[in-house]
Amino acid sequence: MYKKIDSGILQELEHIVGKKNLITERENMEDYGHDEIALSHMRNYPEVVLRPSTSKEISEILKLANKHLIPVVARGGGTGLAGGCVPVFGGIVISLEKMNKFLELDEENLMATMEAGVTLMKFHQTLQEKNLFFPPHPGEESATIGGIISTNAGGARAVKYGTVRNFVRSIEVVLPQGDIVKLGGKLLKDSSGYNLLHLMIGSEGTLGIVTKGTFSIMPIPKASLTLIIPFDDVSGALKSVPHILCSGILPLSIEFVSSELIIMTKEFLKKSWPVQVGNVYLLIILEGEDMEEVEKASMKVSEVCLSHKAIDVFVAESRDKQDEILEIRSKIYEALKSKTVEAIDIVLPRNQIEPHLKRLSEIEKEADMWLPTFGHAADGNLHTHISKFNLKGEYIEDWEKKYEDVRRAIHDDAIERGGKISGEHGIGFAKKEYLEIFTDKSLLQLMKGIKRTFDPNNILNPGKIFDLTQEKY
Amino acid sequence: MYKKIDSGILQELEHIVGKKNLITERENMEDYGHDEIALSHMRNYPEVVLRPSTSKEISEILKLANKHLIPVVARGGGTGLAGGCVPVFGGIVISLEKMNKFLELDEENLMATMEAGVTLMKFHQTLQEKNLFFPPHPGEESATIGGIISTNAGGARAVKYGTVRNFVRSIEVVLPQGDIVKLGGKLLKDSSGYNLLHLMIGSEGTLGIVTKGTFSIMPIPKASLTLIIPFDDVSGALKSVPHILCSGILPLSIEFVSSELIIMTKEFLKKSWPVQVGNVYLLIILEGEDMEEVEKASMKVSEVCLSHKAIDVFVAESRDKQDEILEIRSKIYEALKSKTVEAIDIVLPRNQIEPHLKRLSEIEKEADMWLPTFGHAADGNLHTHISKFNLKGEYIEDWEKKYEDVRRAIHDDAIERGGKISGEHGIGFAKKEYLEIFTDKSLLQLMKGIKRTFDPNNILNPGKIFDLTQEKY
Repeated sequence: MYKKIDSGILQELEHIVGKKNLITERENMEDYGHDEIALSHMRNYPEVVLRPSTSKEISEILKLANKHLIPVVARGGGTGLAGGCVPVFGGIVISLEKMNKFLELDEENLMATMEAGVTLMKFHQTLQEKNLFFPPHPGEESATIGGIISTNAGGARAVKYGTVRNFVRSIEVVLPQGDIVKLGGKLLKDSSGYNLLHLMIGSEGTLGIVTKGTFSIMPIPKASLTLIIPFDDVSGALKSVPHILCSGILPLSIEFVSSELIIMTKEFLKKSWPVQVGNVYLLIILEGEDMEEVEKASMKVSEVCLSHKAIDVFVAESRDKQDEILEIRSKIYEALKSKTVEAIDIVLPRNQIEPHLKRLSEIEKEADMWLPTFGHAADGNLHTHISKFNLKGEYIEDWEKKYEDVRRAIHDDAIERGGKISGEHGIGFAKKEYLEIFTDKSLLQLMKGIKRTFDPNNILNPGKIFDLTQEKY
Repeated sequence: MYKKIDSGILQELEHIVGKKNLITERENMEDYGHDEIALSHMRNYPEVVLRPSTSKEISEILKLANKHLIPVVARGGGTGLAGGCVPVFGGIVISLEKMNKFLELDEENLMATMEAGVTLMKFHQTLQEKNLFFPPHPGEESATIGGIISTNAGGARAVKYGTVRNFVRSIEVVLPQGDIVKLGGKLLKDSSGYNLLHLMIGSEGTLGIVTKGTFSIMPIPKASLTLIIPFDDVSGALKSVPHILCSGILPLSIEFVSSELIIMTKEFLKKSWPVQVGNVYLLIILEGEDMEEVEKASMKVSEVCLSHKAIDVFVAESRDKQDEILEIRSKIYEALKSKTVEAIDIVLPRNQIEPHLKRLSEIEKEADMWLPTFGHAADGNLHTHISKFNLKGEYIEDWEKKYEDVRRAIHDDAIERGGKISGEHGIGFAKKEYLEIFTDKSLLQLMKGIKRTFDPNNILNPGKIFDLTQEKY
């Protein structure tokens, strides 16, 4: 059904972006064929990589792609974990790397506008110089803002501030047929017709290519503390969480992680970790307008946790110490990467984490497969890593045979508990079978109908979220 | 194109909801034919009013309506200001008044679930008994939760907490063709396919009938203060706002209102108002975990305002005094109602309020029509009231001749400044021509395509947001 790109089309594309922004040599395309998921079948070469500099160029590319029926995939930082930017049908990859200008810092409206290729790191740094702050913090700072909008990225701070969705005020999008449109505005309220902005957020590049974004920002909170609270077991740790939140304290983040994973990560990073006791930690970040306020909150949190069998409470106050703890937490994924295949991303009602962990431990034993798990204790988003090792730490030669059953069992339990397949990574290519299985049929039909409305030729990121290439379109 | 309801259909409907929940007598239908908008053409009688008790009954009604091509409009509290629930094509009005059960208060997950007909007042009261709190506060407490979801209602607290959208976790919806589906879950993150929950929020009952809602809730903040800050003119008042927000203080609400409107409202309510100086007030509510924290914030706010020519700062500390101030503020609309025709609902970037007010004052003079205006100074949502009186306070006999020009001029200026037609009331019937005029053509086509996907027979709340009855469907 899709056409191959021939030399005539290539010439037209070169005319749009210029020779130096068009890549066709396989050896230079390696980086554009995959994201961070470790599964070997989740990669594919595009026929051509384009690096446009303007929305106008992207619009022209999409018009051409519609004319010739060529699939197009937009690519940001390539830090996804669901294969969302993999060009599974070949065709064109549009890399947004050259559209990386920070356009405006509007302090009166507390909003920042930038091109889609700006990285989170650049966004954070630019704000920091002005004592400003973008609350959502998806772990990987080389992600681009186009990517975090397209996946509705979350991160550890969602418990206080919500996901990226809550901060996106406006985007520029190139629609599949080439129209360049603006959704939203520098506005905090909007009830003017169907909210296409919120539909576009999290649609993983299947309904349009995000080319600019305007976000709400805030002054940096003036004081913060990081607490490490060790427990003997995960049960006490998790039971503390609703009590913390009901006490009126809303931490910036509440994470749980085993001491096993922390030890592994600190050794991987050659760093030190201040706490030697306990099997499970709660890591809690508190922030506020002054140290007194934060210390009061810290006392309350400590009280709650100690009454739920916390062994102790360690408080990190200096910026350096807090950053070191945060670094170890955020690099667990990297430390695990060589041993694991996929990071699961299920999200549950908060009070279902504990029973789900019990089920996980059963699955782990039944399959004799190590399933290291950590996650966001307050927002219910859990990252279980499917590994290639058994519980004794030995490599499983035939891990691929067990992989699908283990993966399915984890998702089955999450859905049964009122959860969903993806909290923050998206469906992409990796989880689309599960979306079909676990979604009400009439809702799936509506999603597919929306896709048809936006993209009648199914040229934009086809085969992601669901695969319509086999259906009547 | 739509069919009239004959005695056979009426019998089928009676079979679904029972005789006592079916109204056909005109004298008993009066209340079901309009909302709170004062324009006389924004009302119409339905052919029948139904009061179902379950989602199943609503599903059966919709299936019948599709079979016979009968328009259906869902109705909550009827407190809308855009004619959204008016049965403009006759047909069926489904009133959700009997679906008013508070279903669950889940303190572990901090979420509350109720049927769509529960009023905001009942919601607030139920929470208050447990020291819990639903932050969004659309002024009118007889609104129902189905209504506030369907309009993405806002209110004065959006500056701190955002609109209702930020708090909706899950809804049950009866889709136009009768499927009963659940969107979302007790989840704080979700990136599992297109976000139909967020599409449904604010779709004004045109894509489905909301029958249940689950919301995030919070512990009640333990301390609060209300500040009244008088200024000689609106300019200083508005200039203070970004400086307050940049100082790191995020008030629960920041409203501006003229002393003229406050005096009128306090006389209407026969209440007293503690401040005798100034022509314009900022009303600011601060909340926090203890009085010390709130008082510190109050000092900072005062400092900022006094440096921007505030005349003084009045602080209300007692619950009673704070409630009295809030009541006067929230009854301005009621005090104005007999003199005005329509409450405009434009929303602007915060820094555009002041220049827009300048333009408003020109429009007021050019038309010699009193245009009382107040609104949410921090979120840019302004309510100008188009009145039937001139600037001398005399009744304008031919106000209808001036009405459309004045209305258009206000909206033109808002759009020019990067604003939108509706911040929180919705488009409904009253503003659909403006949505057509002021929305990018390709976005309008997408909205209409979405409507067609959800509601192929165009039976659900037709003629709202846009009118597709004249278009090829």
